[in-house]
Amino acid sequence: MIIIGEKINSSLKFIRPAMESYDTAFIQDIAKKQAEAGASFIDVNAGMFAKDEPERLAWLVKTVQEVVDIPLAIDSPDPKALEQGLLVSTTAKPLINSISDEKDKYDSVLPLIKQFNARVCALCMDDSGMPETIEDRVRIADRLINKLTKEGIAIDDIFIDPMVRPIGTGSHYGKLAVETIRQIKTSYPEVHIACGLSNISFGIPARKLMNQTFLVAAMCAGMDGAILDPLDTKLMSFIYSTEALLGLDDYCMEYVTKFKEGILTV
Amino acid sequence: MIIIGEKINSSLKFIRPAMESYDTAFIQDIAKKQAEAGASFIDVNAGMFAKDEPERLAWLVKTVQEVVDIPLAIDSPDPKALEQGLLVSTTAKPLINSISDEKDKYDSVLPLIKQFNARVCALCMDDSGMPETIEDRVRIADRLINKLTKEGIAIDDIFIDPMVRPIGTGSHYGKLAVETIRQIKTSYPEVHIACGLSNISFGIPARKLMNQTFLVAAMCAGMDGAILDPLDTKLMSFIYSTEALLGLDDYCMEYVTKFKEGILTV
Repeated sequence: MIIIGEKINSSLKFIRPAMESYDTAFIQDIAKKQAEAGASFIDVNAGMFAKDEPERLAWLVKTVQEVVDIPLAIDSPDPKALEQGLLVSTTAKPLINSISDEKDKYDSVLPLIKQFNARVCALCMDDSGMPETIEDRVRIADRLINKLTKEGIAIDDIFIDPMVRPIGTGSHYGKLAVETIRQIKTSYPEVHIACGLSNISFGIPARKLMNQTFLVAAMCAGMDGAILDPLDTKLMSFIYSTEALLGLDDYCMEYVTKFKEGILTV
Repeated sequence: MIIIGEKINSSLKFIRPAMESYDTAFIQDIAKKQAEAGASFIDVNAGMFAKDEPERLAWLVKTVQEVVDIPLAIDSPDPKALEQGLLVSTTAKPLINSISDEKDKYDSVLPLIKQFNARVCALCMDDSGMPETIEDRVRIADRLINKLTKEGIAIDDIFIDPMVRPIGTGSHYGKLAVETIRQIKTSYPEVHIACGLSNISFGIPARKLMNQTFLVAAMCAGMDGAILDPLDTKLMSFIYSTEALLGLDDYCMEYVTKFKEGILTV
């Protein structure tokens, strides 16, 4: 499972003040803890700083990569901010978050992927808006995968985000997300699928329970990445248990090791 | 979700003494609590009483049905014990646990299903032993469903048990169980699928975590019944969350109700 650690994000209240005051030690501590807990990427997002996002994002990239060796997920809707982050990135193959099949976004982010030899999160969206059906999402994913690989981007550098919507706003959105994942992964076994997990539970109570449930369901359907909090040991426990259940953990070795380390919570 | 409450089972240490001493109040209390917690059937099993299992089982049936209206799952490998339980059963359509495609078992249990207009758990097993592959299990399920329905048994009175084996003894057994469920439910949408959940985690640590994980995975694949402890609020929480995730709970109404009742634990 490819874990993109979500905690260094300016929309999260606990970390915002540290970003505002350029608190290097605080940011680096959160970065190290996420890496130690199993993150494969550290997401950095400065989107709440409207005035100087590019500089803020570049500072986050430099600050985090001083203390971790894993690549960063450079996260912004603004291609200019992405570029400033990528210019100072020194780890191999950072992940750009994100591209989509919206024309302006596609055309402005594609050159960055190529210039910086980056991985990319590709959202199942185009200029007609958020797709409502499984078929529409799969069609956009098909198109993005075909266009990106024709540009020379390796298929396993692409992370498809099926765009999870809250089940509180539509009872069918859970099944829609799970079946979209299954169909894309069946058609393209080498592409990665990574969701923002917590979208599923927006607006309903007991959000952690629903996030855990969706994690298991989505992994069983072929999701092999997620943007989540790797310090949430309960959620991480379900990653280990689902990997064991799916036969991805020979002899349950990792599962048993994590149990012995006291990581598994029930 | 069809829940078969598993607690009145002579192999469970907490209840065995109450069975030995014919402690009516204790047994009835456990039966009522399981029904209140959402059980659709109450399983009764006296299999540890080798000398007088039929009489013990009949006593359990009489004792339990004095206090609950839901049908019982009359649970024994011995057709004579099943018969004694069925003879005193007064609730509509008890569930016989179990038949299989082993010739002796099939021939001795079939008449009981017909005589007592019962539902039946059908195990994916035949005289060649425990099947090792998905294909073998699906083939046995096919054969059992075809034979039983030809005998006039309604397809939705049949509960197929795919025979879950511990992932600690084979890393592939989780996926095997999940894919067996998916194939059977796809071929026969009206048949029920009910597992003994806790078999999956036999011999590994953090069993509850793995049972919760398997519950979600199996429900996503089409399992609509399970033999489990309905007083385990954590496990029940995952039933409610999975039903909501799968769109089986309009507007998450039941999920929110259970949250308000304090049932959902995270």
